[in-house]
Amino acid sequence: MAVERMLPTPEAEQLLELTRELVDKELAPRAARDEEEGAFPRDLFRTLGAAGLLGLPYDEEYGGSGQPYEVYLQVVEELARGWLAVGLGVSVHTLSCYPLASFGSDAQKAEHLPAMLGGDRLGAYCLSETASGSDAAAMTTRAERDGDGYLVNGAKAWITHGGEADHYTLFARTGAPDSGARGISCLHVPAGVPGLSAAAPERKMGMRSSTTSGVLFDGVRVGADALIGEEGKGFGIALSALDSGRLGIAACAVGVAQAALDAALAYSRERRQFGSAIGDFQGVGFMLADMATQVAASRELYLAAARRRDAGLAFSEQAAMAKLMATDTAMRVTTDAVQVFGGYGYTRDFPVERYMREAKVLQIVEGTNQIQRLVISRHLARRA
Amino acid sequence: MAVERMLPTPEAEQLLELTRELVDKELAPRAARDEEEGAFPRDLFRTLGAAGLLGLPYDEEYGGSGQPYEVYLQVVEELARGWLAVGLGVSVHTLSCYPLASFGSDAQKAEHLPAMLGGDRLGAYCLSETASGSDAAAMTTRAERDGDGYLVNGAKAWITHGGEADHYTLFARTGAPDSGARGISCLHVPAGVPGLSAAAPERKMGMRSSTTSGVLFDGVRVGADALIGEEGKGFGIALSALDSGRLGIAACAVGVAQAALDAALAYSRERRQFGSAIGDFQGVGFMLADMATQVAASRELYLAAARRRDAGLAFSEQAAMAKLMATDTAMRVTTDAVQVFGGYGYTRDFPVERYMREAKVLQIVEGTNQIQRLVISRHLARRA
Amino acid sequence: MAVERMLPTPEAEQLLELTRELVDKELAPRAARDEEEGAFPRDLFRTLGAAGLLGLPYDEEYGGSGQPYEVYLQVVEELARGWLAVGLGVSVHTLSCYPLASFGSDAQKAEHLPAMLGGDRLGAYCLSETASGSDAAAMTTRAERDGDGYLVNGAKAWITHGGEADHYTLFARTGAPDSGARGISCLHVPAGVPGLSAAAPERKMGMRSSTTSGVLFDGVRVGADALIGEEGKGFGIALSALDSGRLGIAACAVGVAQAALDAALAYSRERRQFGSAIGDFQGVGFMLADMATQVAASRELYLAAARRRDAGLAFSEQAAMAKLMATDTAMRVTTDAVQVFGGYGYTRDFPVERYMREAKVLQIVEGTNQIQRLVISRHLARRA
Amino acid sequence: MAVERMLPTPEAEQLLELTRELVDKELAPRAARDEEEGAFPRDLFRTLGAAGLLGLPYDEEYGGSGQPYEVYLQVVEELARGWLAVGLGVSVHTLSCYPLASFGSDAQKAEHLPAMLGGDRLGAYCLSETASGSDAAAMTTRAERDGDGYLVNGAKAWITHGGEADHYTLFARTGAPDSGARGISCLHVPAGVPGLSAAAPERKMGMRSSTTSGVLFDGVRVGADALIGEEGKGFGIALSALDSGRLGIAACAVGVAQAALDAALAYSRERRQFGSAIGDFQGVGFMLADMATQVAASRELYLAAARRRDAGLAFSEQAAMAKLMATDTAMRVTTDAVQVFGGYGYTRDFPVERYMREAKVLQIVEGTNQIQRLVISRHLARRA
Repeated sequence: MAVERMLPTPEAEQLLELTRELVDKELAPRAARDEEEGAFPRDLFRTLGAAGLLGLPYDEEYGGSGQPYEVYLQVVEELARGWLAVGLGVSVHTLSCYPLASFGSDAQKAEHLPAMLGGDRLGAYCLSETASGSDAAAMTTRAERDGDGYLVNGAKAWITHGGEADHYTLFARTGAPDSGARGISCLHVPAGVPGLSAAAPERKMGMRSSTTSGVLFDGVRVGADALIGEEGKGFGIALSALDSGRLGIAACAVGVAQAALDAALAYSRERRQFGSAIGDFQGVGFMLADMATQVAASRELYLAAARRRDAGLAFSEQAAMAKLMATDTAMRVTTDAVQVFGGYGYTRDFPVERYMREAKVLQIVEGTNQIQRLVISRHLARRA
Repeated sequence: MAVERMLPTPEAEQLLELTRELVDKELAPRAARDEEEGAFPRDLFRTLGAAGLLGLPYDEEYGGSGQPYEVYLQVVEELARGWLAVGLGVSVHTLSCYPLASFGSDAQKAEHLPAMLGGDRLGAYCLSETASGSDAAAMTTRAERDGDGYLVNGAKAWITHGGEADHYTLFARTGAPDSGARGISCLHVPAGVPGLSAAAPERKMGMRSSTTSGVLFDGVRVGADALIGEEGKGFGIALSALDSGRLGIAACAVGVAQAALDAALAYSRERRQFGSAIGDFQGVGFMLADMATQVAASRELYLAAARRRDAGLAFSEQAAMAKLMATDTAMRVTTDAVQVFGGYGYTRDFPVERYMREAKVLQIVEGTNQIQRLVISRHLARRA
Repeated sequence: MAVERMLPTPEAEQLLELTRELVDKELAPRAARDEEEGAFPRDLFRTLGAAGLLGLPYDEEYGGSGQPYEVYLQVVEELARGWLAVGLGVSVHTLSCYPLASFGSDAQKAEHLPAMLGGDRLGAYCLSETASGSDAAAMTTRAERDGDGYLVNGAKAWITHGGEADHYTLFARTGAPDSGARGISCLHVPAGVPGLSAAAPERKMGMRSSTTSGVLFDGVRVGADALIGEEGKGFGIALSALDSGRLGIAACAVGVAQAALDAALAYSRERRQFGSAIGDFQGVGFMLADMATQVAASRELYLAAARRRDAGLAFSEQAAMAKLMATDTAMRVTTDAVQVFGGYGYTRDFPVERYMREAKVLQIVEGTNQIQRLVISRHLARRA
Repeated sequence: MAVERMLPTPEAEQLLELTRELVDKELAPRAARDEEEGAFPRDLFRTLGAAGLLGLPYDEEYGGSGQPYEVYLQVVEELARGWLAVGLGVSVHTLSCYPLASFGSDAQKAEHLPAMLGGDRLGAYCLSETASGSDAAAMTTRAERDGDGYLVNGAKAWITHGGEADHYTLFARTGAPDSGARGISCLHVPAGVPGLSAAAPERKMGMRSSTTSGVLFDGVRVGADALIGEEGKGFGIALSALDSGRLGIAACAVGVAQAALDAALAYSRERRQFGSAIGDFQGVGFMLADMATQVAASRELYLAAARRRDAGLAFSEQAAMAKLMATDTAMRVTTDAVQVFGGYGYTRDFPVERYMREAKVLQIVEGTNQIQRLVISRHLARRA
């Protein structure tokens, strides 16, 4: 059954309707098999781009839809409900477009954005390194001045769409090795440049259709026009992108949790024991009630953060809260959904074991939930 | 520090501003002492009525303010942040007005509502009995036809404002003893009628300024015009009132949780151990982050339910979710707030021990959280 | 590091020492690869049998070791720490021997037990059916009198070692279809009999080296000497076996949780961020402290239940508590262990993602944790 | 109903039997009223001393009973089940005797212990100060050499039995102000000495019969024979006493949690709704099952730690785990017990609201549960 939403415009309702149709026709039928085979659904991103779903929050001038984040995120949620790898892929792609769309020059935007927002060029976001997950000062990938361009050397890790992307939004150190957060810049690097290669994909517990791999920059040369925003301002760009990206993860988490809840609820009505549907026993019924409540609260929390963003208010603390709550909820709800199914839930004959394997990654990406708590506690301390 | 809110109108912002002023000047300075003495702050309800805060969601025609529930509830939250007994009192009073305002005749409304919404007549809501907390079919208080009026006999239990109220919104059985939910009617009973009396107030763990007592109806006679809505339709009225009442409790819970969070946060910046503010240790900082996240999610959940109500959509399931989540959160957050204060938190020198004692009642009133889970699970089953 | 234990005898210390050696040399090196390939480690059960670890709690007369359950379970825990499929396999095998060892005739014991306890004949326990997980009255597999033996028809589901076992301890209905729990008997069925076959193994989220499958009985004939205990007493036998079996699951859960904790703890000392081992941040350190506390409490709870069993006291309620607590703990601790590892934990390069996938099944088998709560609440009600 | 225990000796069974009798006859009938009035039950400690229950773990030579900690703690648990103020009082008194009994000279022991263990002289333990709860280096109370004795100046805070005790086991700084943990010594100070006084008792949320107050040392002179152990070794004595003291708190927590569980269980059988005992609804029954499981696990965890202590093994980590788990359990279980009672539970007509108010202090005393997690995580790090 469709989640009841209070959407701000009829246009938004049509977008959500379109999304649900795509989910039902294009995503849901393939998800289980593609995940089992680890197949990357590159074609689906073209389909989504053609349908106008890859550039929702960006300017119509460059091929976007000019939708508020409140609407964009609900589209991501619905996609993730059908197939998390696709919902997360859209969120990561949107994240990879954010620096260029927000800090790029008009020329850069005109050159790149239409293809990025239309589905022709899929993006990746290259921030993490093996020794610098949450610690920017430890970043070692360097972009040295080379003629009027840059020479890039280093290795990025945990890159979603690594090896599949058409462009990489890269954060690299243009300052001295000890320049900390102030010596980092943002570069737009197309996939085909010499010296850029992807390591073998990580062998993950789940989300096998969402390729994750290291990306190596071995003497990669890019022109001066690869620089997004000012030199040395990259870390600020990265942080501001992350605030938005965390909302995307929160929406993904709500999507997968909703899928697990829907499946468990349906099963609880069909499966009978001791003469009743198991959902009529309070032991199961109360579990479902708690799951539904947590999912609803997580949704409202990311929507509230999105509305702040849409209104131009600060939303960094709210984004961290939404990411924390939604992903912890997704982990709990998917684990309990397997429980509702009993032994059946532990098999690949039903999707809930997959949801549970998928949910775990959301507590980790774009800042572990420990980092989110750190972010929130610092905001609290500042306000106190 | 004030909670940042996105309010729908400038008028709503003024209402919240006014509320915060009243809280700071009139409520906060008295709360601790009055609670210790168990003093009922009757005068404050007059003050609130005079300020226009007792009839917020009701028609301006009868002295209300015509505010959406979204705004009304945030006023209740702010009042509860200052003093839960007052916030809850406003919520209960508003609940007691609901049947008359929603199902009463124009004549009934014209006669009673102005005084009820203006603070002259404080209300109580008489539904529970000792043997029928959550089980309406067990209700034994009877209202028998007597001339053109009713003769009421029976005992109600757990009545907030019992003995203090100026009118009682009473649910009684007008049908046969075995008429179940279909034999119940709603009556408006003024406080002074012969035969109506209140038992000794309950000796409670907290909320001692919010009188709770049994109310006895011993041969009470009321006229035909006491009947609100149709005879035999009282249980539907009660349920629909409860949906709104649960949102009031949710708002109260968020208010007391916010108060506890604010106090714990402030203390965590002042108190130093091992050379740092204790809030800088992740052990405390992460606890505060979790508390703040849960409080924010609870607030958004009741607001979302309220917006559904304001839009004329069904909101019974959402109200139960909001009540469940907000009150469980309040219990956890107030308990953790005492923990942040350590030994100091366990004393009456700081307000957090009071918040903790107060929060507990919210998990119980207007349907225990077990009943909320039952309500939610039934809605889920129906939708599955 | 080895868990410090207070063992009752020097012999027990040697058994644990031997177990740890086998774990380090024979189990740990193969677990990850065999699990990935879904290879069933039949040979290891021979090794364990030869080492005397397959008949620990049974009579020395028939090849057992006469060890108390307190010791046997700690051996299971250590095996599960190295490889859950093996620990659980030993527990299930021990369960399959229980009816014969406890209710069999001397002749039956002399004929079968030595090979069962020595590792030559691995066992399976056939109780569940697709429609009768927790509901014995719904059992449909029938064993009809046929000459002086039985003719068995039906299908069992969720059978650990299905298709791999050398004997099946079968529960089937010998009474009328509506005979409920009183019409069930226990039979010893060797694997090779005509008409017995196993369905394709279930495709599980984890524990792929522990084969689970349906077992079909299609006109299987067994002699009168297949009957264990009295006809019609099978359900009592099954329940009493389950009490012991639940302790085995609890021990397995503690083993896998301990493995996850050990891995997370080691990683938390090696991995550095912001200049410190991540375990030195309270955010991680407190998580580890909670994990360790829960693991320790789960261990003590199963040990206490085992000591009651060893002393001849009732232990059904305690076994349900131990199963409930230990398996919920295992799920939480393994999930948090992945979190401590961050992105690395989500890959197959480290064992924690496997532990998490494995832990889930323990909340489900031998009575879901909802059934355990039902068992406990009924014991409580009886005692109240 | 009595908790079933596996006690090591018939003597221990008699001790527990005796304790239960005293609880039923002497403690339970007074607890509610004395707590309401804040009356300190000095006479009960004489009764317990006369019954031989005040010196259980100490040498028989000096009037103790030579019982293992495993037994002593179960006596404390039973006392706390009847009245937490008394159980905690016995634990604190036992703690106050520990330095003298473990590090005192034969002469000191002969002079003081018999009266201390017999109930004539009740003890208090003076370690905390307002600015040094968990941080020993911050201790400012000084004991300066004065002739062949000491001159003590300073203020201790949060002293259980402050103003009621007959002797104070005091930790004070005999070294330089910056001597940290190495400059602290332990002194035995009788109550009557000039300059010693108690501040007004703290006004606490609960445990009002267990006096807590600041104790002032204003030029208090004691002789050289007041020194317990070596000068400068006091902090080690304090830590080692605390390990034992934490076990006492854990036992108290299990006692109060058991009392709450027993009350809730009994009520769940009596109270009927919708035609059944509320305990027969899984919503309540599963809650009770979880409560009972947590209580049982907490008990086994402190017993396991005690057995290690009794066997002469290190038990500091285990004591911290037991204190953490048992007191978090007590908070949860008492809060849920009120929930089972519904509105009745929120009143002083039933004991559960008192249990809930009492339980909170246990998460704070003798090291907050945050400090326990710190202690555990450091032990883990050392072992890793």
